[in-house]
Amino acid sequence: MGLKNHAILLIHCNDRKGLISTITHFLFEHNGNIIDLDEHVEKSEGIFFMRVEWELEGFDIPKENIHSVFDEKIASQFEMEWQLHFTDKKPRMAIFVSKASHCLYDILSRHYSGEWQIEIPAIISNHSIHEEVANRYGIPFYHFEMNKDNKAEVEMAQMTLLTELRVDFIILARYMQILSNDFISAYPNRIINIHHSFLPAFAGAKPYHRAHERGVKIIGATSHYVTADLDAGPIIEQDVVKISHKNTVEDLIRKGKDLEKIVLSRAIWTHLQRKALVHNNRTVIFE
Amino acid sequence: MGLKNHAILLIHCNDRKGLISTITHFLFEHNGNIIDLDEHVEKSEGIFFMRVEWELEGFDIPKENIHSVFDEKIASQFEMEWQLHFTDKKPRMAIFVSKASHCLYDILSRHYSGEWQIEIPAIISNHSIHEEVANRYGIPFYHFEMNKDNKAEVEMAQMTLLTELRVDFIILARYMQILSNDFISAYPNRIINIHHSFLPAFAGAKPYHRAHERGVKIIGATSHYVTADLDAGPIIEQDVVKISHKNTVEDLIRKGKDLEKIVLSRAIWTHLQRKALVHNNRTVIFE
Amino acid sequence: MGLKNHAILLIHCNDRKGLISTITHFLFEHNGNIIDLDEHVEKSEGIFFMRVEWELEGFDIPKENIHSVFDEKIASQFEMEWQLHFTDKKPRMAIFVSKASHCLYDILSRHYSGEWQIEIPAIISNHSIHEEVANRYGIPFYHFEMNKDNKAEVEMAQMTLLTELRVDFIILARYMQILSNDFISAYPNRIINIHHSFLPAFAGAKPYHRAHERGVKIIGATSHYVTADLDAGPIIEQDVVKISHKNTVEDLIRKGKDLEKIVLSRAIWTHLQRKALVHNNRTVIFE
Amino acid sequence: MGLKNHAILLIHCNDRKGLISTITHFLFEHNGNIIDLDEHVEKSEGIFFMRVEWELEGFDIPKENIHSVFDEKIASQFEMEWQLHFTDKKPRMAIFVSKASHCLYDILSRHYSGEWQIEIPAIISNHSIHEEVANRYGIPFYHFEMNKDNKAEVEMAQMTLLTELRVDFIILARYMQILSNDFISAYPNRIINIHHSFLPAFAGAKPYHRAHERGVKIIGATSHYVTADLDAGPIIEQDVVKISHKNTVEDLIRKGKDLEKIVLSRAIWTHLQRKALVHNNRTVIFE
Repeated sequence: MGLKNHAILLIHCNDRKGLISTITHFLFEHNGNIIDLDEHVEKSEGIFFMRVEWELEGFDIPKENIHSVFDEKIASQFEMEWQLHFTDKKPRMAIFVSKASHCLYDILSRHYSGEWQIEIPAIISNHSIHEEVANRYGIPFYHFEMNKDNKAEVEMAQMTLLTELRVDFIILARYMQILSNDFISAYPNRIINIHHSFLPAFAGAKPYHRAHERGVKIIGATSHYVTADLDAGPIIEQDVVKISHKNTVEDLIRKGKDLEKIVLSRAIWTHLQRKALVHNNRTVIFE
Repeated sequence: MGLKNHAILLIHCNDRKGLISTITHFLFEHNGNIIDLDEHVEKSEGIFFMRVEWELEGFDIPKENIHSVFDEKIASQFEMEWQLHFTDKKPRMAIFVSKASHCLYDILSRHYSGEWQIEIPAIISNHSIHEEVANRYGIPFYHFEMNKDNKAEVEMAQMTLLTELRVDFIILARYMQILSNDFISAYPNRIINIHHSFLPAFAGAKPYHRAHERGVKIIGATSHYVTADLDAGPIIEQDVVKISHKNTVEDLIRKGKDLEKIVLSRAIWTHLQRKALVHNNRTVIFE
Repeated sequence: MGLKNHAILLIHCNDRKGLISTITHFLFEHNGNIIDLDEHVEKSEGIFFMRVEWELEGFDIPKENIHSVFDEKIASQFEMEWQLHFTDKKPRMAIFVSKASHCLYDILSRHYSGEWQIEIPAIISNHSIHEEVANRYGIPFYHFEMNKDNKAEVEMAQMTLLTELRVDFIILARYMQILSNDFISAYPNRIINIHHSFLPAFAGAKPYHRAHERGVKIIGATSHYVTADLDAGPIIEQDVVKISHKNTVEDLIRKGKDLEKIVLSRAIWTHLQRKALVHNNRTVIFE
Repeated sequence: MGLKNHAILLIHCNDRKGLISTITHFLFEHNGNIIDLDEHVEKSEGIFFMRVEWELEGFDIPKENIHSVFDEKIASQFEMEWQLHFTDKKPRMAIFVSKASHCLYDILSRHYSGEWQIEIPAIISNHSIHEEVANRYGIPFYHFEMNKDNKAEVEMAQMTLLTELRVDFIILARYMQILSNDFISAYPNRIINIHHSFLPAFAGAKPYHRAHERGVKIIGATSHYVTADLDAGPIIEQDVVKISHKNTVEDLIRKGKDLEKIVLSRAIWTHLQRKALVHNNRTVIFE
């Protein structure tokens, strides 16, 4: 299946009358056929959000000029924060992983079966155990041994590597290291983590042990963009599963793995579709 | 809480370029502030659906002229099927009920607590047992005794009553009579039924008995608009609940009641928000 | 439908070999027909839990002696904590409520339709607004006006009333007052609260506002036994519903009401079936 | 992690007084420590079901004699249908697969990470495309080319192979061939299929297309034991996911894949734990 030749605009700005009319008129007058349009107004703050996807075939602004034309004609006058994406460019995704394999394997099997239109130029790990599976799938594997003294140095090397590989966004597929603020700020809203609890409950370490101890009847998993505030970034996707008194901590871990991998993969899908916008530590997720 | 002074347009027509731009420009040039806009294109059929809600305050077309202006300027040239609603007019809802009380009580408690902005001019039943509760809530109760011979006559009387009471739409809150096609066609997409199964499984009678017999692990409820085809109208809302081998048919009935009343009430909410559009026996439900 | 003539034993004690054999043999030798048996061993603590229900018809120990015989023959030698219940005795349930009506109405409609085999000798409130609905259902209503100075006094009066009315257990149906430890300790594991969040997330006040602010994608409700530790008692039942960025705080409150009433009513059902055992601030809930 | 040294009895027979007492007494008098006991009485038919798991360490009947002793002392007198399993024996599972890879990959990643205690002596397919992944995981791959003329012959060869490999049970991981009755009857309640709909809705071919056409709001997946009656065998596990009008058939297929693999894997887990009993085309699933 070939890649579609569409453009996608993600916009947010202060709300005012005529925004939708202005933007859709701009696309119409340049002969753009809108495939999908979603908008949302966050009334409490007066912020307007929009995602619009249109066909480039027949659109009379050359692809390489769309950015500058839209900026000049529309974005600048409304003081928009905005992104422009083209669907014919495969995003480059790096996977960070520690020992747990379930999210990694789930991602790889989707990649291999062509479910996602991405490139994976690197699997990066603080352990070497997943090197073999990376090789099997033909994905370069980078092992960075970490100890309590070399963290800054390792992160520097990782960031250099990510730049060289032109990585667009990063998946923390149960990566058990805390990233520094410098690292995080280099990839704003472009690092996706999976946390094994229904945040904000049980943020931090050992959530299944704490869920068991508390006697909750439902456990969850949460995928979110990583911010400097641990486990507190904007939430992309959550889901839950019922448990009972019969379930040991090991059962919670086993059931949770299925949640984690599905929730993380849904979040990646949403990100890839350019359907997640972030404002004030919350997301607008267009379906 | 006062009623909002908004207008809502529901539209569907053949898809073509410029529809959103044209409609939003129309609202903008008449100084309408869009509160909410949703659109959907059903690609397989090339049909465009849209719901747009805007503030009437400041809108420079007088309320009583909006219909004719929109028709002339927009709807007629695009051959739209469309509806115009005003949020300051409370819809008038009639409830049809037989013996089961759970959906009726749930509706009445919502009405009484002000959750919905509606008027309920009639509870209509083929039994008299709910007359007392209707009286308690101050709602006129109409008892139509039915037997195998008087069905046509009763329906005629009911339709006369509904007309006199200026009823806008009808809820079948576990009403165990099958309506005639004449009756149904008088209220197209304005009769909402709740069926006690996850349609299309177990359409028809005794769905819980059949679910138990089949040994399913999940039961459901389905709310849909009534069409001439029994239990086959366009689905508005569905939900499910897990069951186990421990559950008897009586347990399914008990668990199912909670599903039925919640699913029906969500469907009513969706209808009241004017967020359900129907085309080709399927619904577009804007969230 | 008449009440069944069954007995139910709820037991927990240190686990050891032969417990099930001993108990079931005791019932068998006295000609008891077991209707339902559930057991659970909490391995981490070595605690055995059991619920067994049997028919009293044909059982050769007179009903009034079962307690003493079981105590002497079985319970004392195994140092059991245990309860004996008879299904032909309707439990007496008091409802505490403040202003919100959805849980109260839901309980009353179930009671009225005969879903539960209970008596409701009192609705108790710090407001008078629900007096009318109590009257309609023929349930005595007690209004205790509360201010910051009379709390101890009011609680004393309430406890006296509950004793006079021989109340077995209490439902806090969105009762917005914090009970004193003295009150709580008079009804251990017999006060059921509904909290409008997915505990332990958003314990305390205004959970929907906090959920909205945090940008979660799922909200929940939790029913638990009340302990001295606010919103931290043993959890009986939880459920959740998906939300989106489109939902305002008001939408969360509306959606949450449906969760709250269903979750609370399921917890009451579980309690009435004598299927909830409590140990170390957690519940064993037999299905 | 070593395998546990437990025995598991699965029993069903006509209900009568004293069954639990007799069985648990038998285990107790032979010094067996019960780890887990579940029972269920299907009242409408008067059938008793039981699963009991106990430690073999200290049990004073030699492992190789348990079958004959239990048969003589208990099973024969109560005319039980029963099975005896030992947890230290890894079941041997064959996977049948056609082109779709998601269920296969999910199973393999669980197997590889040690989630299940099984052996997989064969992946069998009517296509060769999964040979490479089988090789990667070191699992023998058998390709049986099928056409409309050689079906009987291929099945014969497959059955011979399964016998040679001492296969205990079979997973149809989206295997798109219909098995003959002879094949099915050789593995009663030991062939597990995943169907990509919420059965009994949309049995047969192309369920996602039919779900889309019908406009349902929820899709599901069903894992069941295979019987001669297509898609109508006893259901082990079902789950569902919400969809909307926005979802194309392709979206349903994509969302459904996640359901299918999770539901199938849960069913396999249940089967491996010996927690599924079958009677009258329905299952008792002990949690």
